[in-house]
Amino acid sequence: MSDTSAAPRRGREIRRARASARTVKYPYIRRKLPVVELLSTEAVEIIEANAETILAEIGIEFRRDPESLRLWREAGADVAGERVHIPRGLARQLLKTAPREFELYARNPERNVHFGGDATVFSPVGGPPFVTDLDRGRRYGTLEDLKNFIKLAHMAPAIHFSGGCMCEPMEIAPNKRHLDVQYSFFRFSDQGCEATPETPGHARDAVGLARALFGTAYLEDHPVVLGNINSNSPLTFDGRMLGALREFAAANQGTIVVPAVLAGAMGPVTAAGCMAEILAETMAGMALTQLVRPGAPVILGSFVGAISMRTGAPTFGTPEATQMIFATAQLARRLGVPCRSGGSLCSSKSADAQAAYESAHTLLPTLLAGVNLVTHAAGWLEGGLVAGYEKFVMDADQLAMMQVLAQGMDISTRGQALDALREVGPGSHFLGCEHTQANFETAFYQSTIADYSSYEQWSAEGALTAEQRANGVWKKMLAEYQDPGIDPAADEAMLAFIAGRKAVLTDAVEEE
Amino acid sequence: MSDTSAAPRRGREIRRARASARTVKYPYIRRKLPVVELLSTEAVEIIEANAETILAEIGIEFRRDPESLRLWREAGADVAGERVHIPRGLARQLLKTAPREFELYARNPERNVHFGGDATVFSPVGGPPFVTDLDRGRRYGTLEDLKNFIKLAHMAPAIHFSGGCMCEPMEIAPNKRHLDVQYSFFRFSDQGCEATPETPGHARDAVGLARALFGTAYLEDHPVVLGNINSNSPLTFDGRMLGALREFAAANQGTIVVPAVLAGAMGPVTAAGCMAEILAETMAGMALTQLVRPGAPVILGSFVGAISMRTGAPTFGTPEATQMIFATAQLARRLGVPCRSGGSLCSSKSADAQAAYESAHTLLPTLLAGVNLVTHAAGWLEGGLVAGYEKFVMDADQLAMMQVLAQGMDISTRGQALDALREVGPGSHFLGCEHTQANFETAFYQSTIADYSSYEQWSAEGALTAEQRANGVWKKMLAEYQDPGIDPAADEAMLAFIAGRKAVLTDAVEEE
Repeated sequence: MSDTSAAPRRGREIRRARASARTVKYPYIRRKLPVVELLSTEAVEIIEANAETILAEIGIEFRRDPESLRLWREAGADVAGERVHIPRGLARQLLKTAPREFELYARNPERNVHFGGDATVFSPVGGPPFVTDLDRGRRYGTLEDLKNFIKLAHMAPAIHFSGGCMCEPMEIAPNKRHLDVQYSFFRFSDQGCEATPETPGHARDAVGLARALFGTAYLEDHPVVLGNINSNSPLTFDGRMLGALREFAAANQGTIVVPAVLAGAMGPVTAAGCMAEILAETMAGMALTQLVRPGAPVILGSFVGAISMRTGAPTFGTPEATQMIFATAQLARRLGVPCRSGGSLCSSKSADAQAAYESAHTLLPTLLAGVNLVTHAAGWLEGGLVAGYEKFVMDADQLAMMQVLAQGMDISTRGQALDALREVGPGSHFLGCEHTQANFETAFYQSTIADYSSYEQWSAEGALTAEQRANGVWKKMLAEYQDPGIDPAADEAMLAFIAGRKAVLTDAVEEE
Repeated sequence: MSDTSAAPRRGREIRRARASARTVKYPYIRRKLPVVELLSTEAVEIIEANAETILAEIGIEFRRDPESLRLWREAGADVAGERVHIPRGLARQLLKTAPREFELYARNPERNVHFGGDATVFSPVGGPPFVTDLDRGRRYGTLEDLKNFIKLAHMAPAIHFSGGCMCEPMEIAPNKRHLDVQYSFFRFSDQGCEATPETPGHARDAVGLARALFGTAYLEDHPVVLGNINSNSPLTFDGRMLGALREFAAANQGTIVVPAVLAGAMGPVTAAGCMAEILAETMAGMALTQLVRPGAPVILGSFVGAISMRTGAPTFGTPEATQMIFATAQLARRLGVPCRSGGSLCSSKSADAQAAYESAHTLLPTLLAGVNLVTHAAGWLEGGLVAGYEKFVMDADQLAMMQVLAQGMDISTRGQALDALREVGPGSHFLGCEHTQANFETAFYQSTIADYSSYEQWSAEGALTAEQRANGVWKKMLAEYQDPGIDPAADEAMLAFIAGRKAVLTDAVEEE
């Protein structure tokens, strides 16, 4: 459902936001670029056939979740122990009830986002136990850090969605942490967010909190959170993730089914082998959501990298990963579901050139490929172990550039600028011409990080690297954060829900 | 002329080169990826029509070169003073004699490169007056620095062509410098190279030296140097560049016609406006080569950036530049000539994250777009004022990754890896499986710069940034450089030519 009628308004808004000194949010991206597909039809058909072979002949293990096995048996799969052999074509058939596109509702309707079609949504890093910044160095994340990242994501113009847990608040007991995390997302930003349910109980709590905020009836036909569901590659789902998946699907909330495949470790050493595996796993997991509740919104996810054949360490931003990002989007479109991949992945320990090369070679392919939800798009360092404050705002700057790129080349009369060429003619310059005067404020995105001054001026100002400049940017943003506020009754309902849950949970590493 | 028969050999060679510990050169790229085109047919037709409007109605100035004006008048253009109005369709018609593809011959035939079609050739930075490295900082370039960069380009696996003058040897008088530069290229590497003729005399000397090395008869049907010809945008060519262009075309040597357009200064503030200007200028310059000698090899070049609307400083790696790179390749293909753009451009003063983001957002589009000659692909810093030793080897590492990416996804039985998936099955890993054992050595490109170790190990080793690690890489490469040698008679002939020329040139800033 391309929203072409809104396109001119959207273009104006983005240009105005770019020109404005104050922080303005961009609407999520409606791309005007064609999607880039690198695989031939022959190649995608081979990968699709191999995925069906994997499902039918090798099968997928659904561990410690009898209900999933029951659903598969009823659907006609061959279930032997916990191994489910899914006949060719069955998973694809089941996925016909999954929506091609869907809306994810935020408490501020202006910040609703759309998944699928020509929409692209950027969301920040999720999952790291550590955080780092230039002042305090690398350390465990805290709830305070998480709130900071939620605020930064709330303010960054081209971060449209708050994503998952930017850093784990390590000071809070693991079985209660999810409550404070989810509350912080709902409370300190009015844009949409993920949940990161690691157990069925987490998933129920995420849905419970969402009901407290939005109302139980509202959730029935309004997805307001996305649950991130990882398979245990290769070819396995465990009971905790399966339970969380079933909770979310039953509540009509969105799920993302994401294998985390590093080629050479959880997948073969070749991209085409990994893609068949990823497609098989996501088809199995997504089909299960449709067995739970036909029509439940679900996203095909991939998280791609490779291991170093020298050390076994994870690598990102390499050519193999780039190929897999393009392939993911292409396969998801053929399957008719939204897709997630991305975003600014890197192995680097510091926000240096390695980090930027690797991130750019993940992010730009994601945008060109037409990925719908770009996760981990800001702040990711060290293979996802660390959320970096400086990296966060550096990446956010790149995201704004990607949003401009996605608008395509302006080919209107303004864009053609023939009048300017006639006015200026040979051998002069365009600095003061009428067309430049009329358009310079909105002509180009103004980077918040890049330094374009002369060597002499840059040296006089301390010869700062991009990372050092970024240190000032995030501090200024946090100082300028404005609380979006919240309806007191909704806030009270959430706090009451949390108090009730915490009263029955004793501190523990894992839910029982 | 797609060289498909050589493809399997080429793939094996690249995989072997990747796996080898010693430095092995990759052959130039024969892409297996489809070319990525972001402009609609409607958009390119508008730009093409506007270019014709510029040529016919505004016209191009050919300054201080009566011979060019005479050639245009004879060809049917309307010449008023130095302003040439080229009737619609004439330039495109004249370009029908330009070769769609051509070979550039190196003194080592294994290092010949091909321009056009599915070929992509990487070449390093050209033009900076300054060099920098972490030990000695930023300083004027010398002949010693130039030789170092020629050696690094000779050794870097994915730099297929030595390009233009990586840094100006500032200690040599400007009117003699070109002789030492050209000799160094011919002497210290056996791969092909550019010349950077700034005057007709330089061009004659470049051709003279090439004749001394290759023989006069050989040059008649073997292009062995490429002359870089810049227009003075907007819409102007000066007499010195025009004379150089005519010398090269007359000698059947290659030319690249390259407007240097920074949007907002030498072009309009819009990408579509700049592209019409670039197309008009390149069509005019390239058509002139065909008036001089029909069939002379010529390349359509673009060098794209924008100015900062805050400071007027040049910016690179921005969305507008990315759009223009894709557009350049698309327009050149429609015109039926090879194209040049790229490569690893940035504004950054240091080889930091800004440098890497900007470079990656220039390089990856160049590869995806199907640019045939990617110039400035390694070593570029500070808007081209500086050639950086660390940046050079960091970029060279990225080029090798781009070469792997260009091979596309391996969809052979090996690539599909179904046997591996069957062997491993659910819940295990691929680290030791047979397919991994058989393929791990050649599976992934091994970065020479990236650090994939743990935070603890990286810290123990001094917490080096990518730039700091790169410092060790270029030193090791220079220490390991092996002189390719040269035929003594050819060397003597070149040295005699240079001695003869220097005897009649008194030190001066400019040729008379």
